[in-house]
Amino acid sequence: MPDIGYLNGRFSPLEEISISPDDRGFLFGDGVYEVIRAYHGVPAFWGDHFARLARSAKEIQLPFALEYVEFQDILFTGLQQSGYAEGKIYIQITRGVAPREHVFPAKEKPTVFLSFREMAPLTTDLTTQGVKVITVPDIRWDRCDIKSLNLLPNVLAKQRAQEAEAFEAIFVRDGLVREGATSNIFILKNGEISTPERNQFVLAGVTQHQVINLARKQGRDVQLRPIPLELVFEADEVFLVGTTIEVLPVTNIDGQGVNNETPGPVTLSLQQQFSELVAHI
Amino acid sequence: MPDIGYLNGRFSPLEEISISPDDRGFLFGDGVYEVIRAYHGVPAFWGDHFARLARSAKEIQLPFALEYVEFQDILFTGLQQSGYAEGKIYIQITRGVAPREHVFPAKEKPTVFLSFREMAPLTTDLTTQGVKVITVPDIRWDRCDIKSLNLLPNVLAKQRAQEAEAFEAIFVRDGLVREGATSNIFILKNGEISTPERNQFVLAGVTQHQVINLARKQGRDVQLRPIPLELVFEADEVFLVGTTIEVLPVTNIDGQGVNNETPGPVTLSLQQQFSELVAHI
Repeated sequence: MPDIGYLNGRFSPLEEISISPDDRGFLFGDGVYEVIRAYHGVPAFWGDHFARLARSAKEIQLPFALEYVEFQDILFTGLQQSGYAEGKIYIQITRGVAPREHVFPAKEKPTVFLSFREMAPLTTDLTTQGVKVITVPDIRWDRCDIKSLNLLPNVLAKQRAQEAEAFEAIFVRDGLVREGATSNIFILKNGEISTPERNQFVLAGVTQHQVINLARKQGRDVQLRPIPLELVFEADEVFLVGTTIEVLPVTNIDGQGVNNETPGPVTLSLQQQFSELVAHI
Repeated sequence: MPDIGYLNGRFSPLEEISISPDDRGFLFGDGVYEVIRAYHGVPAFWGDHFARLARSAKEIQLPFALEYVEFQDILFTGLQQSGYAEGKIYIQITRGVAPREHVFPAKEKPTVFLSFREMAPLTTDLTTQGVKVITVPDIRWDRCDIKSLNLLPNVLAKQRAQEAEAFEAIFVRDGLVREGATSNIFILKNGEISTPERNQFVLAGVTQHQVINLARKQGRDVQLRPIPLELVFEADEVFLVGTTIEVLPVTNIDGQGVNNETPGPVTLSLQQQFSELVAHI
């Protein structure tokens, strides 16, 4: 079956969907988005994604066009039409179509777009052997807590990582590690797990939240707090989390090995726990 | 005649143009743009806009797809097809269409989009009586010298200005005035004209450049330098410049009057000079 698209109430093959060049998503990045992973035909943590989407929309004064039940219905219908058991659902809402002016259009009719694609999981090499990352200056705007379409700095950072043969770029601002271009970061030191405190420079991760819960259920101490870059280099274990990467060990940062370039036991344990969690949603 | 669009080599009525939802402009704001004003059928300062577009593209590693002569040809052909003597030409180049991944697509084929619309000049009220502005914290990213599609903070600032019944929002970062959401700013104090120094927090304005030249031709002292916000409140005159607003007097900042809420003589003189300049291009 084909990739499926959804635009303003209608499903169709993704390739048949087209957008106006006057869409404010295209002209200004004036919109918000989410990515949801589906396992065995079930969208994971979609309530959390829905809540975050609604919050992002509110923060940019975008009238939120979707009800909870309607959102659920769209997710399940699209997935079913695609036929994908392992799916990647992309949801984007923009401030609609209007002749180009920065101020909001007088009559706002948001654009609601979704795509349903098959998920190509990470290779076992990456998930079992871990990945390299680089650190980059965080040149993004001051509202990284909003999951907006203004992603050019993330694109450039991720490209820079790839050119350095690394998997991810970690943003550092004011000496503190914030998050990856497409992930959240965790470190383990002396048995304590830390992830950066949530503020306007970090997106509140859905997978991050799940992993914090899993670790706490294991009886581990998890702290959300400011993490200076030095602490990352001194960590016993480092890992990334995200919707499509799940829990991914980091074995090298800026050329410096972590835990002898080997995924650590706590990371692997949480990776395993997360797999079991999503196997049963 | 209708608004005209141009997409990847083809002209058509603007309303017939459609974009893929997988265009990286729509998904990431991964692209750059320019706006060119046409007077009596002639695109103004298009060489400067072309140079800036090429620079913006280079700064985000976007292969620049247009030759100088080809660009000129597109501008004149589109204008002619539209039939507009007073026109607003919008040019956008994105990193093309590919399934959503942050890293650059393996085969990049940029999207080149233009629209040709009729220019609705500002009302005489605004140009002769001046406008109110507000100041806002500059929450944008650290590469405002790139004219990119990541314009959400500009959209939000401009909307905030409108809600305050002001024409423009002026970004202030580290205590320094940088630029408006859609304009550059000038101040006059004791006969000296200043505009913010050019660095990564300010776009190098095409109209700004022209106005600097006009003022210098008038024998005036023009300085590009850091401008603390206090200096703006103490200025004898304040004005905005931009492609569509030309030279626009500012008579009120954050509720505080400038020059007794009256456009100053130097501002009006430069406004007049600019009108004569574009009348003869």
